[in-house]
Amino acid sequence: MRVPEVRVMGVDPGLTRCGIGAVEGRPGAPLSLVGVGVVRTPADHDIGARLLAVEAGVERWLDEVKPDAVAVERVFAQHNVRTVMGTAQAAAIAIVCAARRGLPVALHTPSEVKAAITGSGTADKRQVGMMVSRLLRLDAMPKPADAADALALAICHVWRGGAQNRLADAVARARAGRTTGGDVP
Amino acid sequence: MRVPEVRVMGVDPGLTRCGIGAVEGRPGAPLSLVGVGVVRTPADHDIGARLLAVEAGVERWLDEVKPDAVAVERVFAQHNVRTVMGTAQAAAIAIVCAARRGLPVALHTPSEVKAAITGSGTADKRQVGMMVSRLLRLDAMPKPADAADALALAICHVWRGGAQNRLADAVARARAGRTTGGDVP
Repeated sequence: MRVPEVRVMGVDPGLTRCGIGAVEGRPGAPLSLVGVGVVRTPADHDIGARLLAVEAGVERWLDEVKPDAVAVERVFAQHNVRTVMGTAQAAAIAIVCAARRGLPVALHTPSEVKAAITGSGTADKRQVGMMVSRLLRLDAMPKPADAADALALAICHVWRGGAQNRLADAVARARAGRTTGGDVP
Repeated sequence: MRVPEVRVMGVDPGLTRCGIGAVEGRPGAPLSLVGVGVVRTPADHDIGARLLAVEAGVERWLDEVKPDAVAVERVFAQHNVRTVMGTAQAAAIAIVCAARRGLPVALHTPSEVKAAITGSGTADKRQVGMMVSRLLRLDAMPKPADAADALALAICHVWRGGAQNRLADAVARARAGRTTGGDVP
């Protein structure tokens, strides 16, 4: 069974810079870049205005990219206490925008993403950026780092999501009693 | 100058239980209860479905209460690491729902609320619940504690917001050169 191509929009959440990166592909085949950018909100605006601006930005990207799934970085309370609340709140907005459209939302931790892209869960930003450029055959590293991280999330999801989907499909077929004679991976 | 009555909806954010409580009043006058309740979301649903349910619940309450302002508990990364991310994300949804309607959103810390309601920033939940019942002349303490906390937030905002508004008005009048002979509080 050939896994179909999937278009994934990655979101590296943040209030000051929310990275957005979309790729298309399937596990084991070359990936292609759909789009990449950053949604920025002014630090001197109040939290309501900033979250509204993140929402508007994410909605515009969803309209443009029309992804099959959205991957958002999983935020932990332990990391970077000064900015983590804003990060969590921007993530909430991205998640609810996707869920409102009925899109599947996956959360991946930074170390899952790094491990998927570079082979090491502790890779630094430059290494992630280099691998993103290589995997998408880009001439230069996407800037800022938030944009590269969003692409890394999307790539990670194409690869991991693919595996999860194949597993889910296999389970569904097994439950439906169609495992014998089928084209099971 | 008599400060006009203001209707405030308080939100004690949470994914499992999001407390909502609305009051009407002005500083120095008896307050009245507008409504109180809880938006619940099932712990076994995914984060997208839960945030959507919080959004739908907050929207329903905003439609019903028609507040002049919304007060949301300010969440800190230091507190209760296990649940803080869900709390921050539910808060983000409440903030964006209010901001979308152009309503002013205020954030108050738990200790600001406790100090406003009980005179002590370290009061326990029972003391807060008792004072909420007394101030709103209720026969029983609102249950669960999240509902009582949401009312406490709203009361805190009527009192603090009132003071802030008077100050802002005074400043605005001073800047407009209308301080002499005016009805300055």
